[in-house]
Amino acid sequence: MNDLSTLVSPPDEGAAAAITPVPITVAYGDGIGPEIMTASLRVLIAAGAAIAPEVIDIGERVYLSGNSAGIAPESWDSLRRTKVFYKAPITTPQGGGFKSLNVTVRKSLGLFANIRPCASYAPFVQTKHPRMDLVIVRENEEDLYAGIEHRHTDDVYQCLKLISRPGCEKINRYAFEYARAYGRNKVTCFTKDNIMKLTDGLFHKVYDEVGAGYPDIEKEHWIIDIGAAKLADTPEIFDVLVMPNLYGDILSDVAAQIAGSVGLAPSANIGEHCAMFEAIHGSAPRRAGQNLANPSGLLMGGVLMLIHLGKREVAERVHNAWLRTIEDGVHTYDIFREGVSRQKVGTREFGEAVVARLGERPRQLAAVSYPPGPAVPTLGARPRPPAKRELRGVDVFLHWTASNRDPNVLGPAVQAAQGDGLRLAMVSNRGQKVWPQGAAETFCTDHWRCRFQVDDGKPAIAQTQVFELLRRIDALGLSVIKTEHLYTFDGERGYTLGQGQ
Amino acid sequence: MNDLSTLVSPPDEGAAAAITPVPITVAYGDGIGPEIMTASLRVLIAAGAAIAPEVIDIGERVYLSGNSAGIAPESWDSLRRTKVFYKAPITTPQGGGFKSLNVTVRKSLGLFANIRPCASYAPFVQTKHPRMDLVIVRENEEDLYAGIEHRHTDDVYQCLKLISRPGCEKINRYAFEYARAYGRNKVTCFTKDNIMKLTDGLFHKVYDEVGAGYPDIEKEHWIIDIGAAKLADTPEIFDVLVMPNLYGDILSDVAAQIAGSVGLAPSANIGEHCAMFEAIHGSAPRRAGQNLANPSGLLMGGVLMLIHLGKREVAERVHNAWLRTIEDGVHTYDIFREGVSRQKVGTREFGEAVVARLGERPRQLAAVSYPPGPAVPTLGARPRPPAKRELRGVDVFLHWTASNRDPNVLGPAVQAAQGDGLRLAMVSNRGQKVWPQGAAETFCTDHWRCRFQVDDGKPAIAQTQVFELLRRIDALGLSVIKTEHLYTFDGERGYTLGQGQ
Repeated sequence: MNDLSTLVSPPDEGAAAAITPVPITVAYGDGIGPEIMTASLRVLIAAGAAIAPEVIDIGERVYLSGNSAGIAPESWDSLRRTKVFYKAPITTPQGGGFKSLNVTVRKSLGLFANIRPCASYAPFVQTKHPRMDLVIVRENEEDLYAGIEHRHTDDVYQCLKLISRPGCEKINRYAFEYARAYGRNKVTCFTKDNIMKLTDGLFHKVYDEVGAGYPDIEKEHWIIDIGAAKLADTPEIFDVLVMPNLYGDILSDVAAQIAGSVGLAPSANIGEHCAMFEAIHGSAPRRAGQNLANPSGLLMGGVLMLIHLGKREVAERVHNAWLRTIEDGVHTYDIFREGVSRQKVGTREFGEAVVARLGERPRQLAAVSYPPGPAVPTLGARPRPPAKRELRGVDVFLHWTASNRDPNVLGPAVQAAQGDGLRLAMVSNRGQKVWPQGAAETFCTDHWRCRFQVDDGKPAIAQTQVFELLRRIDALGLSVIKTEHLYTFDGERGYTLGQGQ
Repeated sequence: MNDLSTLVSPPDEGAAAAITPVPITVAYGDGIGPEIMTASLRVLIAAGAAIAPEVIDIGERVYLSGNSAGIAPESWDSLRRTKVFYKAPITTPQGGGFKSLNVTVRKSLGLFANIRPCASYAPFVQTKHPRMDLVIVRENEEDLYAGIEHRHTDDVYQCLKLISRPGCEKINRYAFEYARAYGRNKVTCFTKDNIMKLTDGLFHKVYDEVGAGYPDIEKEHWIIDIGAAKLADTPEIFDVLVMPNLYGDILSDVAAQIAGSVGLAPSANIGEHCAMFEAIHGSAPRRAGQNLANPSGLLMGGVLMLIHLGKREVAERVHNAWLRTIEDGVHTYDIFREGVSRQKVGTREFGEAVVARLGERPRQLAAVSYPPGPAVPTLGARPRPPAKRELRGVDVFLHWTASNRDPNVLGPAVQAAQGDGLRLAMVSNRGQKVWPQGAAETFCTDHWRCRFQVDDGKPAIAQTQVFELLRRIDALGLSVIKTEHLYTFDGERGYTLGQGQ
């Protein structure tokens, strides 16, 4: 095996010696990480990638040295300088206090898009879905992953799902730009906007708005439950999919698994300033150090990185050589099957097999083609004029367990806090209206929402009127756990009605 | 075809004439609903179900007559009297203002458990998963389906995910009781508690607590993304699954679809007082009135209803006759396949084919067995002593767009509101800490969270101190959009740290 350093200027490209290597930040990670990173870099550089790796240390050792984020402060300098992070899997130590490195990197660097291509390679890799070739574009920064959770009462815990218009704009524009740059024909959107009319409704609406600017690309929207069922059953009908964070998290794992192997799938995390490329699988500590692991996921992550760096020709060369290797039955243990595979190889040998096929193309599987073109642009959100916002009331949440939790006791009691134009419109429990005129069967927790509103036609209130209301509620001896102000935006209601309201 | 009324006292059961028919509430619904309900009732009654249907009107006509919930107020009387609702699919009219009837019924009657058995019937019904036989027990009342959404700013929309301890207890106890009653061996739990440590963490914790009381039943927990991937790829490894509402919504549709047909799958909605049984598919208006639709889903819903009513012997007779019908290749258009099916039949004829096979059992498919036993009990949550709750601070959320949204301007400005023991600990944007010491790359919306806390070791504060803080923030000219109080419970933190805090 050659010394990697001699390969930075690739010998097999005519003008290669003149190419200035592009600095990238590389982390070898934990477990099988070092082996698969070594094999992957070997292939990329042999193919003429002209990259100059700067190595940083992340993962288990950094965590255990007392850094709760798993990355040393000085490593950020390299990431900010190179703006490209090629990352092997890491091990997060068991036990409390250790934070997800991936979440930290994504959020700190604003990597708003997670790109997950999933293809099947039948008959060479076993799958029930031989014609699958899709890409999931997952929003990566918001939704329930903002990590904002509160325990309010003995009974009730809450997590905030946040969806922003700029977040929706950026991810939907990226999905359509991605489809165009990769010559894909359709972008499908999945949401649950029949239930979450404001948050998922916004995602769907922005998808429609953005999609209108791409008349060449087919568009369709599915409710997530039915869409997920279709994806799991007939993935071949999908092309590019765009969705909020949680749905994308679940369905990108579903897609990779049913394609035949999570060991082959890469992931790109794209931001306006930086990008990160990796395999989707973990560090598999039990396989470490045995030259067993399949480097394909990380190598394919490298292909995505090359495309991002504008090195589309090199990316095509690596990808096609890899397809040929798979097709030739040169397989690591994880995808090896008697009768289909021809040669069981280790991590290193697999990498060498790909290197040996550089310049070749698959014969049975479809070859990929990455004609010259720019990287997928990361378009920011378009500026919009602010809406006219009016405060129309407040939802005050109470912890209350008296009187056998009878809403017909609580309602009139809270009414005593009315005044200054604010009227108690309803009390709900877990979203279900229980006063006035609730149903006796509704189970009530100790967590109550009291909606105070000004009457229609009356002028908007000042926020101090809300604070005064809170004082009056306090004077009634009631315990406030949170508030949600009720606004209209350009006259449109910015809050949903209670179930039964 | 016989008149249904003559069949209420079934002629084929010796002592049947002496059985008092059990009143149930029946709705024929919209689209294909009347046809499949007629066929299903015909089979149930012919099998000796001894039920006395009370018919109520729900759905499209009720919606369009001006009832936004799709159910007339007087229909609730029947539901409360019979406590059992056998419901055909309905059509919700397009356009705004119509509320989901299912959500209304579930929430009003406290139907906390949604039960979705999904089995494959290979080779008679085409599927890629021939050995699948699982049951998803989905929490049905809380999670993001509380429907509490607020638009806070120009940029940001929010939905509350609420998870309660009694909600978790009830659904997990039901899942284990269900497994025991049906002779199933394993209950698997899916959550995303590596990200949502408080809410999904509670669900997982209660699953563990409850599961400890069922040493005879195997237990396992999967993170939802990997679990969903396994479910979509190898559903045969699962038995009973229990999960929060949203995951259950998505995965029960995935399971039904990959089993081979959503047309065969039933659903039970179980509460402490009432229960509802139905097919999982919709009203298919385009197939209506043509004697085409497959009544199997609703008929299997009827089997679940019979078991719920304690009529396990009749349920077994219907289920086995139905399996035999499927196995005999008597198929409606939706599952008809040349070479496998033998006879293409309509809705009525399918029902008659099942009736003709009452008393028979399948020969190739596994016959079901429902030995006498009680219905699955709906156990309430166990009472717990309240925790000692202390107020330690508040998250105040602001709408702010000044100074190019520079957190290093906002932080010091908000600090001016400190006092009375409350100190500004951090500012975050979509959960990511941006002050002090944020990253320049973090994209900032117009939605800011300012966390004020009392120092460790200092006594807890009164809620009036929070309200005073809000007044001081108002005096700084800042716009408050919501608050979340920060509590400890028995000294344990009831809130997550900000990413980077």
